[in-house]
Formats: sequence, C-alpha cells, structure tokens
Amino acid sequence: MTNAIDLDSARAILAAQPFSRLLGAEIGDYDEDGVTLVIPIRPELGQQFGFVHGGVLAYAADNALTYAAALALGPNVLTGGFTITYLRPARGARLRARARVTGATRRQAVCQCEIHAEDEDGESVLVAVAQGTTRAVDRELPSTES
Amino acid sequence: MTNAIDLDSARAILAAQPFSRLLGAEIGDYDEDGVTLVIPIRPELGQQFGFVHGGVLAYAADNALTYAAALALGPNVLTGGFTITYLRPARGARLRARARVTGATRRQAVCQCEIHAEDEDGESVLVAVAQGTTRAVDRELPSTES
Amino acid sequence: MTNAIDLDSARAILAAQPFSRLLGAEIGDYDEDGVTLVIPIRPELGQQFGFVHGGVLAYAADNALTYAAALALGPNVLTGGFTITYLRPARGARLRARARVTGATRRQAVCQCEIHAEDEDGESVLVAVAQGTTRAVDRELPSTES
Amino acid sequence: MTNAIDLDSARAILAAQPFSRLLGAEIGDYDEDGVTLVIPIRPELGQQFGFVHGGVLAYAADNALTYAAALALGPNVLTGGFTITYLRPARGARLRARARVTGATRRQAVCQCEIHAEDEDGESVLVAVAQGTTRAVDRELPSTES
Repeated sequence: MTNAIDLDSARAILAAQPFSRLLGAEIGDYDEDGVTLVIPIRPELGQQFGFVHGGVLAYAADNALTYAAALALGPNVLTGGFTITYLRPARGARLRARARVTGATRRQAVCQCEIHAEDEDGESVLVAVAQGTTRAVDRELPSTES
Repeated sequence: MTNAIDLDSARAILAAQPFSRLLGAEIGDYDEDGVTLVIPIRPELGQQFGFVHGGVLAYAADNALTYAAALALGPNVLTGGFTITYLRPARGARLRARARVTGATRRQAVCQCEIHAEDEDGESVLVAVAQGTTRAVDRELPSTES
Repeated sequence: MTNAIDLDSARAILAAQPFSRLLGAEIGDYDEDGVTLVIPIRPELGQQFGFVHGGVLAYAADNALTYAAALALGPNVLTGGFTITYLRPARGARLRARARVTGATRRQAVCQCEIHAEDEDGESVLVAVAQGTTRAVDRELPSTES
Repeated sequence: MTNAIDLDSARAILAAQPFSRLLGAEIGDYDEDGVTLVIPIRPELGQQFGFVHGGVLAYAADNALTYAAALALGPNVLTGGFTITYLRPARGARLRARARVTGATRRQAVCQCEIHAEDEDGESVLVAVAQGTTRAVDRELPSTES
C-alpha cells in the first residue's frame, strides 16, 4: 500500500495519544505483515488478583487492530468495533499484541489480533484473541456523527 | 439473587483494581436492575484528536459487564469476552457505562452495556454498545488455565 | 421514521428471500418498537441431537437485526456483521427472534436481538442473544465491493 | 490430539444434522490444520438480490468453527457463540468455510474462520470472517441448562 503509514508515523500517532502514554504502550514493529504493540506490565495495569486487567488487553486489541487496518486502508481510518475473547489470565513482563489484516475491500478491513503475555525469559502464552472491523474515512479529523 | 454482591462490595472490588483507580472509575449505582460505572473524562484518557480513547470505552464495557453478571451469578465470575460497537466519538464531562443482565443460566450470563458520554449540563449521547459473556467460576482466585 | 419499511413491505422482502422461504420464516410484527421473526421448528432445522441447529438461530439473528435497523435507517441497509451468544439448546414449537434498535446515527445502527424458543403452550425460554451493526447504503442493489 | 475426531467421523456427524443436509453442506478436508466446509451455492440459499443469504454464511461459520474446536478439545464440544463480519456479497459456485484453532486451553478453544465464495473456474474471493468460542463438555448429549 502506497498510502499506508510507516513505523515512524505509527510511533508519532501513538505518542499523540495521551491514553497510550498513560498505559506505556510502544510500537514494536510495523510492516506490511502487521503491527506489534508492546505494553510493559506494571502493577498499575492490574485487577484485584494481580493479573493484567481485561481492559488493558481490550485497549491493546483496539489499538493494534486499528494500526493493522491502516496497512490496507491508509492513515484515515475509524474502527467500528471489535470482539475480544480471553483465554487465560495475563501476567509477566510485557504484553505483545500482534495484529494483521485478514481481509479488506477498498473501504473496509477486517483484522485479527493475538495478544501474548511474555515473561522475563521471553516465554510467552496466548492470553486473548480479537477481531475488529475498520473503515476508511474521508477526512483526518472525525467529527461527532449524528 | 441472594449471593450477588452489594454496592459496598462492588466499590471495594473496584478500589482493589489498580487499573480502575488509574482510570478514575467509580460505581454510580448497583442494584438488581444493573450497574452504572462512571468515569470522569480527563485529557489523559484521550486519543490523538482529543476524544476519549476507544480503549477506555472498552475497559468500561468489560468492567460494567462483569459487575452486571455478578448480579445473576454471584461474586465469583470470569468474563470470557465481549463485543463492542462504537457509535460516535466520545467527549464531555464523564462516561456512564450502564450494564444489565439480558439472560442467564445457572453458570453463564449474557449482559449488555450502553455507554453514554455526558456533558457538564447532563446532556448525554450514546457512544458505544457492548455485549459480553460471563461464567461462574468455582473458586475466587483464577489460576492460569492451561 | 418516515422512510422505514412497513409490515407489508417487510413481508414482501422476506418472501423474496429464497433462503427465508426454505427455513419457513415469517414476520410476526413490525412496528416502531422492533421486529419479530417467527420460525416454526421442524426436524429439517435440527442438529444431531434433535435441537435446533445454531445456524438457524444465527440466520434468525442476522435477519431480525437487519429488519430492525431499517426502522432507523430506511430500507437500503447492509448488515456488516453480528455477534451471537447461545444460552441454551433450542427446541419446541417455534423460535421468536425479537430485534430492536439500541442506538443509531444517520448512517449506522446498532441493534440487539433476543431469540426465544416457545413450546406449544406458549411457554418460552431465552436461547440466544445477538448484537449487530448495520449501515445505510446509497443504492438498493449492493454490488460486489472490491 | 489423540481424541480429536477424524474425517469419517466428521462426515458422519454432518450427515446426522438435518439442517446441514438441507443446506447441502459437505466436509472438504479435516486434518490437524483445520477443517473446510463446502456448500454448493444454489438459488434456495439466496436473499432478495440473488446473493447468498448472510444466514448461510453464518451457518457455515458456526459449523466450521465447532469442527475446528474439536481438533483441540475432542468430540464433545459446545460453541458458546461467535462473531461474523461480512466483507462482500457472496455468489458463485460454492462457499468454502475454512476454520482453524487460534488458541486453546484444556477446556476452551478460540477458532477463526474465513469464508470464500468460489466460481466455476476456481477463482475465489473472501466474503466473511468469523471468530468463535467453544468449550469442552463432559457429556455427549447436551441437556437444557437452566
């Protein structure tokens, strides 16, 4: 895709998202095969049993799916929604959310995302799987539809 | 439900979730008809255009759906996943995520959640809708299934 | 909605769907509050244990959600996808799939659907719940997007 | 998996589903990498514009996802629900629904399915993508949970 965003642009967009900074998310890699969002696990991201909160996994899915869709649709996209299934409680050193385009038309992309929790030794386990739908939009700044 | 959690317990659980404290979530009400999770909107929760990040809405859905399921299933529950559809960009003074039980068996509940963005004058608009599935678990502390 | 379809039009569209005729689906009611699709249960709709096949419930959800969306968006709509959660095996005399609009913008509607299985005495039990997303399209005849 | 079903068993189960016979579904292949469900397209499976009805695609997803889950969980499984996203209207000679296991614990599998529509020349296009969740059950015959 000639109009897809590159790694530097992807990182700049992430840096412009206050919520992504609050969570400490980083873009690991971003190429034609997909995107990996990395989130270092720290106590502030936990739920009451010490595992990573499901909402953090959902954030990771939402963001990774949207970045992946931009590979097919270009930078001006809007994710319409997604489904996430949790497989196991997540803990360890970091989350890796890897998303790729499963199928796309000119205006719409369906992307899938696998989220692994990785420990200090690099051992990882699949903790959640997600599927999302993203549409190309004509303008860069979304206004409030009504 | 005799074994469902009450408002005080619900607030105690939320207070025990570091990620919920990081986001500033509060439980507005919690009775047999459902639960309302309230999140004051502040710049740290935003995406690059100043709207609330989709991941915040997804967090709100995840948490509200799980609380609602406890109304049918008791306190020991595990949300297996959910679907969220975004309708409009969210901004204003606060988010209100209202979830209720749609249907349940003894072991499983399907809940639905509507998320409104509310401005300072109390005007609100529906910004996202979610549906989730939650199961009763036999023990309080989830271990890592494998 | 001035441009929403009425009961007669809804029935005419259903009659024009060979697959809906194959399944024996009928429109029970269709008004501003939603739509009810009724499917008499017969052996041909079963799975290997004699219950209604999940695919029949999924068909019912797909169709009922789309009809409900037309209440908000008018007759030219395209359902982009949906999520269905099964609660119980379905058997009895008929299925009733009731769908309504949960929220809508000018171009998009999120609808929810509850499917009950009803026996000869009119006793019914909730067997599945679904949520779908539908968009308004500019033309009546969808062409193959690419 | 030692306890997963083989191709012959898979075909026997499909033959025991009246609804699958009504739709004309066949199992194309079934090995450790996944399952392919094939449905010859015929007028009875259509909607009002001559394309394959979305409910047929949803049936295909439901069934293929369940078969795929049996690869990880063994023959006694129950699909709890799934999400389907439609990408393009489907027409041609046949549908091919290919499902595989994305991740699994001992008790639960998340599977994904891609549905292609194929014409007489073997040209195919992706028309829908689905993700489902399936659980192992302890008994072969599901009873009505309540």
